[in-house]
Amino acid sequence: MEKEITIYDLAKILALSPATVSRALNDHPAINAKTKVLIAEKAAELGYRSNTFASHLRTRKTNTLGVIVPRLNSNFMSTVLAGMEEVANNFGYNLLINQSLESELKERSNAKTMFNSRVDGLLVSVAYDTDSFEHFSTFITRNIPVLFFDRIMSHPQCGAVIIDNEQAGYDATRHLLDQGCRRIMHVTGDLRRNVYADRLEGFKRAIAGQNLPLDNRLILSTDLSQEAGRIIADQIDQMVEKPDGLFIANDLCAAICMQALKDKGYAIPEDIAIVGFNNDPVSQVVSPQLTTVFYPGYQMGKTAMTTMIGQLNGTKLIDNSEPIILRSELIIRRSSIRLEKS
Amino acid sequence: MEKEITIYDLAKILALSPATVSRALNDHPAINAKTKVLIAEKAAELGYRSNTFASHLRTRKTNTLGVIVPRLNSNFMSTVLAGMEEVANNFGYNLLINQSLESELKERSNAKTMFNSRVDGLLVSVAYDTDSFEHFSTFITRNIPVLFFDRIMSHPQCGAVIIDNEQAGYDATRHLLDQGCRRIMHVTGDLRRNVYADRLEGFKRAIAGQNLPLDNRLILSTDLSQEAGRIIADQIDQMVEKPDGLFIANDLCAAICMQALKDKGYAIPEDIAIVGFNNDPVSQVVSPQLTTVFYPGYQMGKTAMTTMIGQLNGTKLIDNSEPIILRSELIIRRSSIRLEKS
Repeated sequence: MEKEITIYDLAKILALSPATVSRALNDHPAINAKTKVLIAEKAAELGYRSNTFASHLRTRKTNTLGVIVPRLNSNFMSTVLAGMEEVANNFGYNLLINQSLESELKERSNAKTMFNSRVDGLLVSVAYDTDSFEHFSTFITRNIPVLFFDRIMSHPQCGAVIIDNEQAGYDATRHLLDQGCRRIMHVTGDLRRNVYADRLEGFKRAIAGQNLPLDNRLILSTDLSQEAGRIIADQIDQMVEKPDGLFIANDLCAAICMQALKDKGYAIPEDIAIVGFNNDPVSQVVSPQLTTVFYPGYQMGKTAMTTMIGQLNGTKLIDNSEPIILRSELIIRRSSIRLEKS
Repeated sequence: MEKEITIYDLAKILALSPATVSRALNDHPAINAKTKVLIAEKAAELGYRSNTFASHLRTRKTNTLGVIVPRLNSNFMSTVLAGMEEVANNFGYNLLINQSLESELKERSNAKTMFNSRVDGLLVSVAYDTDSFEHFSTFITRNIPVLFFDRIMSHPQCGAVIIDNEQAGYDATRHLLDQGCRRIMHVTGDLRRNVYADRLEGFKRAIAGQNLPLDNRLILSTDLSQEAGRIIADQIDQMVEKPDGLFIANDLCAAICMQALKDKGYAIPEDIAIVGFNNDPVSQVVSPQLTTVFYPGYQMGKTAMTTMIGQLNGTKLIDNSEPIILRSELIIRRSSIRLEKS
């Protein structure tokens, strides 16, 4: 690679003093506009780079934040990232982004890479199977803030941004009960993760509230993939006592399942009412449109990033603080409406 | 921030020589396994970071690659990024990712940030309105490779990975013609971008191939948003001579438009046959399922990243090379089938 262009090189080429060049590049009022333009143009032409890199060694700041997500290609996650990027960009931070592919092993390796890249802070939504906190404690030890979002781990020194998954699960289930469903199946993800465990708690609370028995055969833990949507439809088709309501913790999985059920001749919502989760674009284009929980992904990204930057600036204290809870909302569409409003 | 832990600190604490510690951390065969474990554990406990950051200053390599995409929250782009991340991770590269939000102004600012962060290479899919190459030439001047993917700019020193958009546009239109459509509307994006300009060329070639007149009122340049889908449906509803076929260069826009047309009482595909683009998950859950062009986003991400890393390793030459063209494929579904196969 070529030799780096310095202020001294620019000064020599332009027959100016290094001080003048430095001041001009920092927009110092003592330098006149014409000289500034001249110097800026030559600097651009020669590919001069402001020496932030070396200054990072001095300040030990890289202005880079690490983000680890389970998967990049999920509509929800890319919406969160878009929100994060907008705020980070406004504050002059760069994002190093990688994905755990739902594996704790890769998440550990990602965290190590982030650590060695000297990120100023780390934002994480953990993988399906993450059990250990160890790969994050390395950051805590070095006073590098770690903030969790969506799928969180509890730690007194880590911030967290979530929605009230228990309430969302309750609202979704309660809505199905209100529509006359009495045998509701809940399809969820890995119950080690708060998002799924909490929604299940809300599901149970709603069932118990109607004095209905809880049938554990109606709670399915899956990977919430499109394939899972097809398999669930097959399973329902083979059940003797079929569910009359279906609450699936992911819209795409729910949409695929609904389609497979329709193909098998089930009427939606008459035979089986369906509620999804996330308010993914698919929920609006399926027929019938899918009742779902609006998940404020963009806002979650912005809030998480604002909190992280506040912590770095010393304007926000995280120690022993409660998670930040964003508002989610049940959006009722035709896939679950079995009773006309009175 | 705390003082950085060095090999010397570790050596002192463990009462070993710095050379032993250094060798152990580099997995040198002269150090026995027990000692290696002891040192590795202590290093982890104290938060030792391999001194890649300082060594970057010496080698002038950061092992970081910049990626600028128009929007993070698009199913297509997040699929491309997932493919890139997988390859980059395997080769020990980190990704700095940001989004131009379809604005050349922000793209310029992003490029500057990437440049100052000393990325080893830059991968870009350009914004809707990018006209200038200037913000990329800074990289070229410094021998930092720039590679374009999907939405590309032509430059002899820049690699490019695309699909054959002209052929894809031809195939989509030809299919509608084969289904008996004679008045086909094409809804596309900003024609400054190769992906849309090339698809339009393919559209025109197919129309000309049937000796049909080209009606410019049937070519609409939009932002391909969900809102655009609704507006197009309104426009069609108000046309005196309505189209009998619709080729929309984005699945989500096409799905929303189809839904709006159905709501207005149009039968799909009988009144209007529809073809989308990308093979987004929505194309499979709409009713009728949407004919579309499979766009190999994941493979594009992997190919672009492999090419970039090959260029950095010196195993791939880019100068004056042709763009790499990936195979796309028309996927025929019910939204466009008006004639049974004979």
